[in-house]
Amino acid sequence: MKINQLLQKLDREAPVLQATFGIEREGLRVTENGDLAQTSHPQKFGSRNFHPYIQTDFSEQQLELITPIAHSTKEARRLLGAITDVAERSLEPEELIWPLSMPPQLDEKDIQIAALEDDFEFHYREQLAEKYGKKLQAISGIHYNMELGADLTAALFKASDYSSLLDFKNALYLKLARNFLRYRWLLTYLYGAAPIAEAGFLPEEVSQPVRSFRNSDFGYVNEDHIHFSYTSLEKYVSDIERYVEQGDLIAEKECYAAVRFRGQNQNRAYLEKGVTYLEFRSFDLNPFEPLGISQETMDTVQLLLLALLWLDDKEENIDQELAAAHDLNNQVALAHPLTNLPKEADAQPILAALQNLIQYFQLGAYYQGLVEKVQAALLDPQLTIAGQLLPYIEQQSLQAFGLAKAQEYRDYAWTAPYALKGYENMELSTQMLLFDALQKGLQVEILDENDQFLKLWHGDHVEYVKNGNMTSKDNYVMPLAMANKTVTKKILAAAGFSVPDGAEFTSLQAGLDYFSHIKGKQIVVKPKSTNFGLGISIFQEPTSYAAYQKALELAFSEDSSVLVEEFIAGTEYRFFVLDGKCEAVLLRVAANVVGDGIHTIRQLVAQKNDNPLRGRDHRSPLEKIQLGEIELLMLAQQGYQPDDILPQGTKVELRRNSNISTGGDSIDVTETMHPSYKDLAAEMALAMGTWACGVDLIIPDSSAISTKENPNCTCIELNFNPSMYMHTYCAEGPGQEITPKILAKLFPEL
Amino acid sequence: MKINQLLQKLDREAPVLQATFGIEREGLRVTENGDLAQTSHPQKFGSRNFHPYIQTDFSEQQLELITPIAHSTKEARRLLGAITDVAERSLEPEELIWPLSMPPQLDEKDIQIAALEDDFEFHYREQLAEKYGKKLQAISGIHYNMELGADLTAALFKASDYSSLLDFKNALYLKLARNFLRYRWLLTYLYGAAPIAEAGFLPEEVSQPVRSFRNSDFGYVNEDHIHFSYTSLEKYVSDIERYVEQGDLIAEKECYAAVRFRGQNQNRAYLEKGVTYLEFRSFDLNPFEPLGISQETMDTVQLLLLALLWLDDKEENIDQELAAAHDLNNQVALAHPLTNLPKEADAQPILAALQNLIQYFQLGAYYQGLVEKVQAALLDPQLTIAGQLLPYIEQQSLQAFGLAKAQEYRDYAWTAPYALKGYENMELSTQMLLFDALQKGLQVEILDENDQFLKLWHGDHVEYVKNGNMTSKDNYVMPLAMANKTVTKKILAAAGFSVPDGAEFTSLQAGLDYFSHIKGKQIVVKPKSTNFGLGISIFQEPTSYAAYQKALELAFSEDSSVLVEEFIAGTEYRFFVLDGKCEAVLLRVAANVVGDGIHTIRQLVAQKNDNPLRGRDHRSPLEKIQLGEIELLMLAQQGYQPDDILPQGTKVELRRNSNISTGGDSIDVTETMHPSYKDLAAEMALAMGTWACGVDLIIPDSSAISTKENPNCTCIELNFNPSMYMHTYCAEGPGQEITPKILAKLFPEL
Repeated sequence: MKINQLLQKLDREAPVLQATFGIEREGLRVTENGDLAQTSHPQKFGSRNFHPYIQTDFSEQQLELITPIAHSTKEARRLLGAITDVAERSLEPEELIWPLSMPPQLDEKDIQIAALEDDFEFHYREQLAEKYGKKLQAISGIHYNMELGADLTAALFKASDYSSLLDFKNALYLKLARNFLRYRWLLTYLYGAAPIAEAGFLPEEVSQPVRSFRNSDFGYVNEDHIHFSYTSLEKYVSDIERYVEQGDLIAEKECYAAVRFRGQNQNRAYLEKGVTYLEFRSFDLNPFEPLGISQETMDTVQLLLLALLWLDDKEENIDQELAAAHDLNNQVALAHPLTNLPKEADAQPILAALQNLIQYFQLGAYYQGLVEKVQAALLDPQLTIAGQLLPYIEQQSLQAFGLAKAQEYRDYAWTAPYALKGYENMELSTQMLLFDALQKGLQVEILDENDQFLKLWHGDHVEYVKNGNMTSKDNYVMPLAMANKTVTKKILAAAGFSVPDGAEFTSLQAGLDYFSHIKGKQIVVKPKSTNFGLGISIFQEPTSYAAYQKALELAFSEDSSVLVEEFIAGTEYRFFVLDGKCEAVLLRVAANVVGDGIHTIRQLVAQKNDNPLRGRDHRSPLEKIQLGEIELLMLAQQGYQPDDILPQGTKVELRRNSNISTGGDSIDVTETMHPSYKDLAAEMALAMGTWACGVDLIIPDSSAISTKENPNCTCIELNFNPSMYMHTYCAEGPGQEITPKILAKLFPEL
Repeated sequence: MKINQLLQKLDREAPVLQATFGIEREGLRVTENGDLAQTSHPQKFGSRNFHPYIQTDFSEQQLELITPIAHSTKEARRLLGAITDVAERSLEPEELIWPLSMPPQLDEKDIQIAALEDDFEFHYREQLAEKYGKKLQAISGIHYNMELGADLTAALFKASDYSSLLDFKNALYLKLARNFLRYRWLLTYLYGAAPIAEAGFLPEEVSQPVRSFRNSDFGYVNEDHIHFSYTSLEKYVSDIERYVEQGDLIAEKECYAAVRFRGQNQNRAYLEKGVTYLEFRSFDLNPFEPLGISQETMDTVQLLLLALLWLDDKEENIDQELAAAHDLNNQVALAHPLTNLPKEADAQPILAALQNLIQYFQLGAYYQGLVEKVQAALLDPQLTIAGQLLPYIEQQSLQAFGLAKAQEYRDYAWTAPYALKGYENMELSTQMLLFDALQKGLQVEILDENDQFLKLWHGDHVEYVKNGNMTSKDNYVMPLAMANKTVTKKILAAAGFSVPDGAEFTSLQAGLDYFSHIKGKQIVVKPKSTNFGLGISIFQEPTSYAAYQKALELAFSEDSSVLVEEFIAGTEYRFFVLDGKCEAVLLRVAANVVGDGIHTIRQLVAQKNDNPLRGRDHRSPLEKIQLGEIELLMLAQQGYQPDDILPQGTKVELRRNSNISTGGDSIDVTETMHPSYKDLAAEMALAMGTWACGVDLIIPDSSAISTKENPNCTCIELNFNPSMYMHTYCAEGPGQEITPKILAKLFPEL
């Protein structure tokens, strides 16, 4: 049946690049000296029984980072980046992830078999250790998983003469697997990145660097007598089953092919249920890349795989041909990185296929450029990864290079530690929640990135989360109540809590009629539904009728409903209450600097802005202090110019408002705030029936004790979408983690 | 201690009108012939064991409508209006509420003692029947409850020389009660409205009309030998206790004073816990008012009560003086309505007090006008209610007048039956929910009228409801998911439901790159977050690249996110799902008329607009059809002018869109829609985890059966705030009640 020349028959606008991807990346945990870490797999990663993203491979030190299915190479790398970020930042402070496929200098006894709870898995590893030695298992790499897109597959199927989609897909992936094995040498040439083995690793010393020990017969290979056929899927399955039956293989998965059929648990199931995708296992870690594989490599490999489909598959002498290809790959792998390819390695057919693909489907300049880079590397081995690694080899070792790179990547992970790499356009609280979810092994899908909408699940248990704290734990109507200041006050007052006295008006006249109630009092006049200070008048001294009228008019210019409330003097604190418990208390103070008698105000601002927590546009926990018009005016009112040296200990405020967004400081006072206030805030949240909420209390004297009867404070607002990150990364104080508590309560089973 | 001359000492801007009010209004259920209804208290009113608003007084036929506490006379009347509306519309079709204090012609045997479950209450009524006869108990009236405002009371207390607020309030209300009894004759003169007793009611025939039999000794009065003192609260309490102890009174509440102390269950408790408010019981039903009392009367009475506080209270010979006042009142009550007051009835002191009050507190023209009306009525008895009733007395009977008024008030209640009188500015669904809550006896507080925010409770069980269906039954995050079309589709698709294929783009280029996916397909291009048709392009024929680009540009001009979806052909239906069950299915069709071969299109539109369900601005279930530019254009395209006679059976559409808001018809198809679609809609809501939601399905052929595997329909949207009223009041079809189901699920204990 027809499996060749199918791409050539597609519509030129067919979605040829449509595919899904998954990356698995192994990496050893090492100490800052480059020794294998002797610690257990970090507890922060939760349970290996189910963790979908962070596992251990053979050894306890060998991290395996696994992306979920991604619909583009970019998305796959973004996911891998985030998981890597989580992994790096969850290690013990002195530990690093070794960035090379070949392990650092090691003693076999330091390799601990991964302490998995699953008996079969542990026992399997014990048998592998016995059979191949533990050292070999310390080699790491990248597995590149790809499934062709559903529309693309359907179009190819239509172009074929198959009548069963299952049979067609099996044939298609068998063809791709064969051609991959035929041209594996090309990938080894381009991406081989395992040029040396550290002293004592190999049974025999090798005198010069090679392209890839890992991709050679020194790497993971089955014993010499193990050969399984690719003439048909049926034969392939039967061969492996026979080896397992005979005890030559411990299990089906011991078959160390460079490509594996995937999608079913048992090989035989492919015959009935079909191959879903292929796993290409031959990629060495690229140590120049923090993630072990570059975007260009991922895209080039996708092109190459499509080219392998474009090329015809020969049906005769398959196993002999593949055996020869194996030998050719071994030869290329063990050649010096700067040698040219042997002439048996003819890249012309695949280069031609690549060009045809690009022209036929009009893939454009980017993909054209990738092909040109492949061509260039074929002409100049210095452009290959192994070629580029050569200068870093010192005394047949990459130990120093590997350590330096590992440190570089760890430092990168720790820049902007409040953010999740690749997801910086999302809100900080959501980034933090995603980090925690990836760390603990919750399944994650971002349903809408701009809307901060996540799906989280574990087994059958699904939770949706928006903005990091809008969940199924709150009921629908209470956040709506909190969004309405009048309703909030009525509910709190009915429950016996202190709220500002006041009233709401929908007409100027009704507001004016209220004057007798506020005569002689300090008051605030504000539009009902604004939070940004527009239209608000504060009378700290009793107001005249005329001034009151003006304030009402101003407020009514902003909203059709206006609140007139008593003004409450004191300091405002934000209490974060979760599930009936106050988890954090924050004091926000206006942007300010404190003098040291040496530096100017401008210099002090610059120093303060050096704090890596300070950034711009709400993508960091604190904002940089500006020296704009408002700030200069504030300084002038206090008798300063920006280039004045500020006396030791003198504090100047640069803003009247205490918003973080205008450079204010966040001060975590959770541990010093009297517990009675925390209890009161929690009781208020309880009275509102809310799960997650911010309680804003004005406290005149926080050294006093609060009781429900004598609260010594007034609640001015509840916030149904309280920021979480600002409690965690503070200008002062230890900071409180909130997002892990959200997750722990959403998924108590974890 | 000082209790006189206190108002005179207040600040002139003191909130003198601050008070709370409550109205109780009795009324007999009668048939359309004017006979006492022989039916039981309507089951629609739920349980009399707790109903806060609708009870029975002495007899099974005697409704008692009770308002909750209101903060103004207007609010009290509005509440009474709503409760009256509910009561009127819950009666059997042939029943009416008798609008007069004196009952219609009746036979004593037709008066059934109210079938209360409370043994004490039932037995108490049996004893009353024996002691006074059942007829007397059929007299109805209004009780006007008032508590002075907290700020006003506090200001008066401050002006006094009392040190205990409780003692002060008791003294204040005692003074008010005494002065009320002293001047009761004035209220009887002004508001007496019981001029005749129907034949056979009184033991002796009275030859001419009077002001108020009810307020005379023919009305509810205790036996002659019962006298309790008002010299002190202590004496008052002891006197009544003694009578009860001696068996002269069945219970404390048998004391039929024109004013009662209120706020405690037992009289003695007033001494320790204080009087909270006063109940003024002397008001006859004003039959000219649908509610039995006018706004002017309520406000005039408030002024009069304040005037009674303004006047001094004499401390000597109190009981003698009150006995004389009693006799004077009886004399005024039994005088012919057009006689002048006897000269012992000196209104000058109270008129002076009224004038002083108005001047001192600058109460303004409205209150000044009220006082002038009192003055006018004092000069001309024809202006009193009893005076105005005279012309309607026929053969010493008001039977015909009473019946006509009762019918008028019933008809009024049934105009716009979808609305709740007094609350027409709220959304229809909320009005309907309020109606149901008042009917079933749920406690109701409107927390925010403009925001449709209600507090409902029964005992300790509180529920908050916004927009009629946003409740604690839904969790917070799922409505947010439904508000996001992309998220909704992803969740439904993941659960295996059919949704339009498509994708979301945040850049024009990304949208253009998708062209290969939509080539040759029918598609819709739309901004993600608009519902109003702006920026939407529908391609029912496959589109060119250029037209696709234009559509994308148009959509991006409306929103930063754009959806490209397959176009689904078929008819759109709205399924209302509540708690996992589809409760209603609606078909909406564009504004249209069908010809009869006689009338012009303009006439047909006018006929259709005559439907009382059609109104304007969403304050009625259907909108009036316009004949504006769009409609005329639509007509022209079909070859018609508005003044053309439309042939018999020809249907013309006046709009392309099927929105109710542009005159479309709502057709209830709940009973005819195949159950398989209702089940599917319910399953979708379940998959979303929502309690109340609208499911919009496009069904190409509703005569087919739907299964999850072959749904034969596509879900284009879920609505988290689905309109409820449109399912109830439809242009065609029986209509489905939704709001009672919401309440029954919120309060299953009811």
